[in-house]
Amino acid sequence: MINSVDSIVQGVLAGRARDIGRAITAAESEGGSPALASRLFARTGRARVIGITGPPGAGKSSLAQRLAQAYRRAGRTVGIVAVDPSSPYSGGAILGDRIRMAEIYTDPGVFIRSMATRGALGGLARATSDAVDVLDAAGYDIILIETVGVGQDEVDIVRAAETTAVVLVPGLGDDIQAIKAGILEIGDVFVVNKADREGSDRTAAELTMMLDLSPSEGWRPPIVRTVAIRNEGIDGAVSALDSHRQFLAENPEGPARVRRRAEARLLALLEERFRRAVQAQAPDPDGLEAAVESVAQRREDPYAAAVRVFDRLVREPVRE
Amino acid sequence: MINSVDSIVQGVLAGRARDIGRAITAAESEGGSPALASRLFARTGRARVIGITGPPGAGKSSLAQRLAQAYRRAGRTVGIVAVDPSSPYSGGAILGDRIRMAEIYTDPGVFIRSMATRGALGGLARATSDAVDVLDAAGYDIILIETVGVGQDEVDIVRAAETTAVVLVPGLGDDIQAIKAGILEIGDVFVVNKADREGSDRTAAELTMMLDLSPSEGWRPPIVRTVAIRNEGIDGAVSALDSHRQFLAENPEGPARVRRRAEARLLALLEERFRRAVQAQAPDPDGLEAAVESVAQRREDPYAAAVRVFDRLVREPVRE
Repeated sequence: MINSVDSIVQGVLAGRARDIGRAITAAESEGGSPALASRLFARTGRARVIGITGPPGAGKSSLAQRLAQAYRRAGRTVGIVAVDPSSPYSGGAILGDRIRMAEIYTDPGVFIRSMATRGALGGLARATSDAVDVLDAAGYDIILIETVGVGQDEVDIVRAAETTAVVLVPGLGDDIQAIKAGILEIGDVFVVNKADREGSDRTAAELTMMLDLSPSEGWRPPIVRTVAIRNEGIDGAVSALDSHRQFLAENPEGPARVRRRAEARLLALLEERFRRAVQAQAPDPDGLEAAVESVAQRREDPYAAAVRVFDRLVREPVRE
Repeated sequence: MINSVDSIVQGVLAGRARDIGRAITAAESEGGSPALASRLFARTGRARVIGITGPPGAGKSSLAQRLAQAYRRAGRTVGIVAVDPSSPYSGGAILGDRIRMAEIYTDPGVFIRSMATRGALGGLARATSDAVDVLDAAGYDIILIETVGVGQDEVDIVRAAETTAVVLVPGLGDDIQAIKAGILEIGDVFVVNKADREGSDRTAAELTMMLDLSPSEGWRPPIVRTVAIRNEGIDGAVSALDSHRQFLAENPEGPARVRRRAEARLLALLEERFRRAVQAQAPDPDGLEAAVESVAQRREDPYAAAVRVFDRLVREPVRE
C-alpha cells in the first residue's frame, strides 16, 4: 500500500490522468485515504477553486463548460468536479455531464470527474475537498466544483470553494422564494442563466431586492446574465468571479474565509470519523444495535438510548 | 424548568395548540429538549406519519393541503410539519405555506408548523422527529412531513415517516435524471402532480421504466397522477398511501422499517451530540480552534489535525 501511495502521489504530481483518477477514487472511499491526502496536501494551495451550484435545470453544466472554455482560452488548465448529492444510494454519478460537456471532454487541459455519495458513511463534502486537493496538486489552475441543488449538502460541498456562483433560471415556479432564502448567503456571484427566457428581468429584480434586504459585509454579490448554451454573457461571469477573488485578496474576508474553509473541512472529517467509530462499536452491548432494538420496541426513548451509546464512546459527556 | 416541562407535557397531551407550539420550538433548539422528548415519547406510536418530498415547484404544499382535507373528511385530525432544509442560515421558514394552505389553516383539526435549520448545529432531522412525536402525543391521527428538495437532507428528514410520497411534475428540465436517481429509493408512492400539463405521460413512463430497472423487494411503488390545485386524483393518492401502510403491516419490511427509523433517529442524535462536544472543546489546546488555525496556515494537513482533535474526544481511536 505504501508503494502504491508513493506511485499515485508521483503520478498525480506529474499530472497523469490515470493516477489522478485513482487518487479521487481513494478520496471517495469510506474514510478517504489519509496517507494519500496528507502527502498531497503539502503540494496544494496554488489552484483557484470556484463553486457552481443552483437548482436542477438551471444549466450549471453548460455554464461550467463555458467557463472552462473561457479559462482555457486564457491559457489556464481546468479541473471539474461534478458532485451529485441527490443520489444518496445509487453510487452513480452524473453521467449526462460527460455528454453535455463533450466540447471540452477531449481537451487534455481539462480534467472532468463526477462524484456521488456512496452510502451514509460517504462524507461527500470531505471527499470533494480531497478531490479538489488532488486536482490542485496535479497542477490544474482552476478547479470548478459543480453541484446540483440548494440544500445543506450543497452548502457543505461548495464550502470547499473560495468563490461560489449560484446559478438561477427564470420561472422556477412557486418554491423560488424558499430556494432564494437558502442560497443568498452562499452566493458570491449570482448568474441568471437562460436569460433569454421570459421572466429573466423579474428574477434579476427579485434577487436585487433580496440582496438589498440582506446585511452587507463589504462584498455585494453581482448579478450577471448568461445564455450558457449560446456562450453569451460568459465574459461577464468571468469578470464577476475575478472581482470577488480580488476582493478576497484585499480584505479581511479573504483570510477569514480560509479559516472557515479549514473549519468546515475539519468538521466534515471529524463527523465522518465519529460515524465510523459508532459503526465499529455498533455490535457492543452498549452499542448502536442494542440501542436501535430498544428504541424500535419502545422500551426506551431515543434520547436516553443515544446518551448511553454516546457516553461509552466520548470521554467528556455533553452537559445539558 | 421542570415545572415548565410538566406544564408543556400536560398541554401537549391535552392538545393545546400553544403548548404544542412551545414543545416544537423546544425541539428546534440546539440539542432539543431531552426532558420533554423523553416524556412525550412514552405517549407516541399511535399516529400515522407520511413524508412528502420532491423538487421545488412540484406542488407539495398543495398536495399536502388536499391530502389533509381528504383525511379530515374521513374524520381524522392532521398535523403538518413543513421542513425547509434549503434555508440553512436564515432561521426563516416557509412563510408561503401558511398562505397557500389557507383553506385548512383555520380548521381546528389541523395543526401546521413550519421548521427551518437554525445554523450548523441545528440537527433538522432530529428536530423533525421530535416535532412528529409532539404531534403524535398531542393526538393527531395523521402527520404529514413536507419537505422541499431531493438531497440527503430531505432523505434524512423523511426517514421519520412510515410512508414517503415523492412528488414530481412534468417538464422539470435537464436535471430530471439526476433527481430521479436519488429519489427512487425513498419513494414508496410517486405522485405526478400538475398532471394536466404537457409531458405528464412522459414523466410517468420514465418513472415506470426506472422502477422496472430497480431491484424490487416486494413493494412496487405505485405512480399516481394528481392536479392538486383542482383537487383531482387525491383519492388515488390516498389509496396508494393506504396500500403501502397495508403492505408494511403484513410484511417483514414493516418491522424492518421501524428499526431503520429508530437507527436514523439515533444517528441524528449522536451526531448532533458529537458536534456539540467538538464545539465545547473548541477552545482547548487540542481543540478545533487550534486545529483550524494550523490547517488554515498550512502548518498541518487536515487529516492529521482532525485525528488529534478526535483522539482527545473519543475513547477508542478509529483504526485506518
